[in-house]
Amino acid sequence: MLASDSIGKEFVVTCFGESHGRCVGVVVDGCPAGLPLSERDIQEEVDKRIPPKPEIVSARREKDIVEVLSGIFNGFTTGAPICTLVWNKEVIPGEYDQIKDVPRPGHADYPARIKYGGFNDYRGGGRFSGRITVAFVMTGAIAKKLLGLFGVEILAYAVEIGKVKVEKKLTIEEIRMNTYKSAVRCPDLERAKAMEEEILKAKSEGDSVGGVVECVALKVPVGVGEPIFDSLDADIAKMLFDVRAVKGVEFGAGFKAAQLRGSENNDAYAIRGGKIVTLTNNAGGVLGGMSSGMPIVVRAAIKPTPSISKEQKSVDLSKMEETLIRVRGRHDPCIVPKAVPVIESAVALVLADHTIRAGVIPKVLREKK
Amino acid sequence: MLASDSIGKEFVVTCFGESHGRCVGVVVDGCPAGLPLSERDIQEEVDKRIPPKPEIVSARREKDIVEVLSGIFNGFTTGAPICTLVWNKEVIPGEYDQIKDVPRPGHADYPARIKYGGFNDYRGGGRFSGRITVAFVMTGAIAKKLLGLFGVEILAYAVEIGKVKVEKKLTIEEIRMNTYKSAVRCPDLERAKAMEEEILKAKSEGDSVGGVVECVALKVPVGVGEPIFDSLDADIAKMLFDVRAVKGVEFGAGFKAAQLRGSENNDAYAIRGGKIVTLTNNAGGVLGGMSSGMPIVVRAAIKPTPSISKEQKSVDLSKMEETLIRVRGRHDPCIVPKAVPVIESAVALVLADHTIRAGVIPKVLREKK
Amino acid sequence: MLASDSIGKEFVVTCFGESHGRCVGVVVDGCPAGLPLSERDIQEEVDKRIPPKPEIVSARREKDIVEVLSGIFNGFTTGAPICTLVWNKEVIPGEYDQIKDVPRPGHADYPARIKYGGFNDYRGGGRFSGRITVAFVMTGAIAKKLLGLFGVEILAYAVEIGKVKVEKKLTIEEIRMNTYKSAVRCPDLERAKAMEEEILKAKSEGDSVGGVVECVALKVPVGVGEPIFDSLDADIAKMLFDVRAVKGVEFGAGFKAAQLRGSENNDAYAIRGGKIVTLTNNAGGVLGGMSSGMPIVVRAAIKPTPSISKEQKSVDLSKMEETLIRVRGRHDPCIVPKAVPVIESAVALVLADHTIRAGVIPKVLREKK
Amino acid sequence: MLASDSIGKEFVVTCFGESHGRCVGVVVDGCPAGLPLSERDIQEEVDKRIPPKPEIVSARREKDIVEVLSGIFNGFTTGAPICTLVWNKEVIPGEYDQIKDVPRPGHADYPARIKYGGFNDYRGGGRFSGRITVAFVMTGAIAKKLLGLFGVEILAYAVEIGKVKVEKKLTIEEIRMNTYKSAVRCPDLERAKAMEEEILKAKSEGDSVGGVVECVALKVPVGVGEPIFDSLDADIAKMLFDVRAVKGVEFGAGFKAAQLRGSENNDAYAIRGGKIVTLTNNAGGVLGGMSSGMPIVVRAAIKPTPSISKEQKSVDLSKMEETLIRVRGRHDPCIVPKAVPVIESAVALVLADHTIRAGVIPKVLREKK
Repeated sequence: MLASDSIGKEFVVTCFGESHGRCVGVVVDGCPAGLPLSERDIQEEVDKRIPPKPEIVSARREKDIVEVLSGIFNGFTTGAPICTLVWNKEVIPGEYDQIKDVPRPGHADYPARIKYGGFNDYRGGGRFSGRITVAFVMTGAIAKKLLGLFGVEILAYAVEIGKVKVEKKLTIEEIRMNTYKSAVRCPDLERAKAMEEEILKAKSEGDSVGGVVECVALKVPVGVGEPIFDSLDADIAKMLFDVRAVKGVEFGAGFKAAQLRGSENNDAYAIRGGKIVTLTNNAGGVLGGMSSGMPIVVRAAIKPTPSISKEQKSVDLSKMEETLIRVRGRHDPCIVPKAVPVIESAVALVLADHTIRAGVIPKVLREKK
Repeated sequence: MLASDSIGKEFVVTCFGESHGRCVGVVVDGCPAGLPLSERDIQEEVDKRIPPKPEIVSARREKDIVEVLSGIFNGFTTGAPICTLVWNKEVIPGEYDQIKDVPRPGHADYPARIKYGGFNDYRGGGRFSGRITVAFVMTGAIAKKLLGLFGVEILAYAVEIGKVKVEKKLTIEEIRMNTYKSAVRCPDLERAKAMEEEILKAKSEGDSVGGVVECVALKVPVGVGEPIFDSLDADIAKMLFDVRAVKGVEFGAGFKAAQLRGSENNDAYAIRGGKIVTLTNNAGGVLGGMSSGMPIVVRAAIKPTPSISKEQKSVDLSKMEETLIRVRGRHDPCIVPKAVPVIESAVALVLADHTIRAGVIPKVLREKK
Repeated sequence: MLASDSIGKEFVVTCFGESHGRCVGVVVDGCPAGLPLSERDIQEEVDKRIPPKPEIVSARREKDIVEVLSGIFNGFTTGAPICTLVWNKEVIPGEYDQIKDVPRPGHADYPARIKYGGFNDYRGGGRFSGRITVAFVMTGAIAKKLLGLFGVEILAYAVEIGKVKVEKKLTIEEIRMNTYKSAVRCPDLERAKAMEEEILKAKSEGDSVGGVVECVALKVPVGVGEPIFDSLDADIAKMLFDVRAVKGVEFGAGFKAAQLRGSENNDAYAIRGGKIVTLTNNAGGVLGGMSSGMPIVVRAAIKPTPSISKEQKSVDLSKMEETLIRVRGRHDPCIVPKAVPVIESAVALVLADHTIRAGVIPKVLREKK
Repeated sequence: MLASDSIGKEFVVTCFGESHGRCVGVVVDGCPAGLPLSERDIQEEVDKRIPPKPEIVSARREKDIVEVLSGIFNGFTTGAPICTLVWNKEVIPGEYDQIKDVPRPGHADYPARIKYGGFNDYRGGGRFSGRITVAFVMTGAIAKKLLGLFGVEILAYAVEIGKVKVEKKLTIEEIRMNTYKSAVRCPDLERAKAMEEEILKAKSEGDSVGGVVECVALKVPVGVGEPIFDSLDADIAKMLFDVRAVKGVEFGAGFKAAQLRGSENNDAYAIRGGKIVTLTNNAGGVLGGMSSGMPIVVRAAIKPTPSISKEQKSVDLSKMEETLIRVRGRHDPCIVPKAVPVIESAVALVLADHTIRAGVIPKVLREKK
């Protein structure tokens, strides 16, 4: 079964396109009718992928222009599938002949070639390229607009880059205000400086660094998520691991929970302002696969960019002999800043799916006169 | 959309049953015809859930007796769905009235009540009980038998319990030989002793501890897993988070990868014995969502058992007032030992699904004369 | 992909069991919490499969006793999957050795053997037996109970058996009152007599007859059904063809519509009692794949029972030579009477699925105190 | 659940676009890598929708130009999703204001408006327009190319238009040679003339006619199709009813089987040329939901075009009062000729899905050097 380009059960997302093909696009099916939506809403989110300091990302690309091909009429979603895409530019033929036979370490080149018998579009990683995440961001734009109508807010931000970590407790206000003030998308503006240096240092050595992105979702109603096999945390984790560079995911106390006692890790219930809350949030807002009403808190570990200019050991598959590869082109020394809106979008699309599933969001948003 | 009790696309698993209902069962659809399979194969795996030292788990239950209701004929699978279950015993009416209105911290009681309007079977956590994982283990037994025919081996074991960690590098031979010699399912038999003490200490204090389970899958062919939304790591992570106590999942270097340089984290290719290998395995055997041919290595963080005998703060939902709860009954001071075969099964069922999807395992295992 | 035993997207039905295995069962996932439901509700529907005159069906079987294994608590559905089954009795080993190598004309024996490499349980047709439809009826019982709460009523009845047809226009009242007064489940009690004779005549000649079952669904709200690929008529047709003996399905004017002019076939709109209706119902209640608010009317052609006692030409697959077969055992000379509750159930389960999908039926039926 | 624009389990088709939006497109996911495919292959099939005699169809549109956006590289499919579309032209704003509030009898206008709260794109029927079937034909082009590599041939043709029927037995040779020689796509060239007259007569009266399309699929291997809920006939029927104008579907003897005796309807087995065949094909090539190895024969009843220029009764929904409507624009007096390639495509895409599911077609068509 090759078909694997759809996700979601009510808010269903189907991706298409390759890094160096004609476009990267997505069909979003199941978005309720009556959501005010424009190309501009989607464009604004796509623009967030480009950090303001070109030196910390790869050589500046042309801006991606979003086009919506279906599903919007008179400024509202119609209930029909929304197809939206960005066209590829700057595709230079021949540039990727290097990797046709010599897989880049840390990339999908080798398993992809075996899996597809050599028919895969290997240029720039093809379908496995980070560029595919533009489709996630376009989807996230729709999901966030939808969730916003119901008061749900989703915020992602960098908390670790290389060996630099945010140590202090961030407030929601700080996250809202500062994340996009920082070129590395870290709301602790002081640590953000150190993170930039960490990136530039790696870059100057022809190397790369990774990091950790945290995401919080606020005001998700209690009981969103389904038991057993479609639990909310499981579906968020699945989507996050579908972002190619993610190597670890944890909720709330996460791996640290393993070292706590039950009496420390359990979040005690209390009543505050007439509402049920927990006094701590080690669960990260998810109990039994359902939202608890507390903020959902998830962290994703992002590996360092595999494309580095240092020479690496590889194998020439056409000759079956060992060789060396120096990956050409200008690469992101750190993809964490670009990953921030991608992670936010990934969480948003799962929440859109699950809030519809839970009946929190209806099929038609309001009756039109 | 309440329906959420099925997982997998080719090897499709549907769960049913509650902790204190009549049974816990599963329907496995899509298992190829021609697999030699018996109730005994499944029974042996289910038995692994009961560690040999009763003092480190909850009060000994009656042994679960596996029954197969469909899908096997003359000792082989038929290609029809396999329904298998264990009947519940020891169901004591009234025992769980306590939690009807007062949710236990760390359990699903509160969101479940809200989600189902109070109609859910709350006894023992109902459908959210750890007992449901018997269904995962029954499925894992079938998956492992199937994968075994194609040389794939899956091994899970504890590497952390409370504050005790395995520090040394475990060999596959050690893991195979020692895991089930240890009551805590840790192949480092020396650390296993310390882990037992950690559990007994928590127990004596009316408390509980968590831990980390690692799982390796050997000899998964290159290219198993699908790009974009059904990647192998994403599907394994989803299934692991469907095990209720899991709060974090990481592959290979995992969260540590975030702190490595690209040149350190990338796994260089080489040729060994005529086959392509990587010299390190920071990727944990997964690249671009597909198996790389190296061992798949995944770790799951297990939270401390939420059922503890210490008094905890909660809320009486029928009166909307704060109250205290002391969870009655005898509980597992640590579920890690029981979780080991569950994690192994979870990984196995995803691999069964994906090896069939990749065409590695055919629809009929061999022609019958 | 062997997995094919589930249907529905919100009200998801998964079948298991074989004709001569241990049981025939079903897991119904996605039924809203809060539906009053008992084993007896299901038993009553299952009992309808046995017509009162043994001479027109096969030799009387033991009554099937329904057991519910999960999903009901204190008399209400819980939102968890409902597993219900009937155990098989009267399984006589050896009785079906005849058909192991010599496929019965009109049955699934030959393609099943090829598909499953001989591993399939061939006894009594195994998984392809008409007995599997008990699972459909158990599901239909739940679906009808659910739909009934929202005013939807579903009525199936025979309109043709062999060469005898109902010619007069049946009223809903007649259908409600008379269908189960008739041994052949035909509400035109006069034609029902002739139908019985048609069956007995075929039986006396060692032969069988088929027929046509009509089904109406009343008070389905406007707009149930989804465009493009999940249209209501398409999903009903799919489910009806999943009843093995069905060879044709038509809605409203059906095949006759092909011969009408547009001006004759179009159903004009009017207002009656403040509501929008159509003055005719050639569409059979479905427009653009959605319910129009008029009664849904569908007919299914049932082929004559393939099991006949006359000698028939076949092939011995073990020797690859032509041979003759005389199907042993006592068979239904006509399955139409048994098919009536099956067709009704099939339509009911699709409507349950689509009314939930359309948001007509909520996830929880009412808040429990 | 609004999401309903995908069909298939291995060869997964997702539609998007509206009649008067920017385009009509489709994403085909799961097509094996290594299939030689070009825009031209798809264009040729799309061109078949335009019969050579403009007088029997609606006013000639501009030719639809097919564009492929993804999934093809160097002339072969890559295993990645194939997105292909045609852009809409001739969209005249304002032309459809008439139907905004007054639903056209026989169209989806009324239930669509209710379902989507008035947000649906009603222009030209929007998503419910016959124009959407261009997407089916683009998909069918890919499916037929794929099936052709494995010897499967699919042929659709008109057998009834209005009151004119093909009475003689058509040979495969005749069907192959003559279907597209006839403007009405009927291989009986004599009856085809009468059919044309039938259409022109209806047209001259401002009316329309329907018909019946038959489709045969040759050389489908034995055992394609899945038992219980994904049977081959059920999935073909579902897809055919997804073609909006279809009101009935039957296989082989179809509704006539209801009047046959079992001894007449059963297809006896025999050996011919060393292969197992049946001496008749009343089953239409499907037994137990699986292909029997005989030609698959299916017929679909097409209703007369609902758009007619005669005045019809309707209701003004904005005022809730009865009114008259005369549908403006030039319409097809008969859509059967256009439906022929659509029905062929519909059958093709289901067969592509099921042959992949059955393992007949592998994931990669051949290893590339």
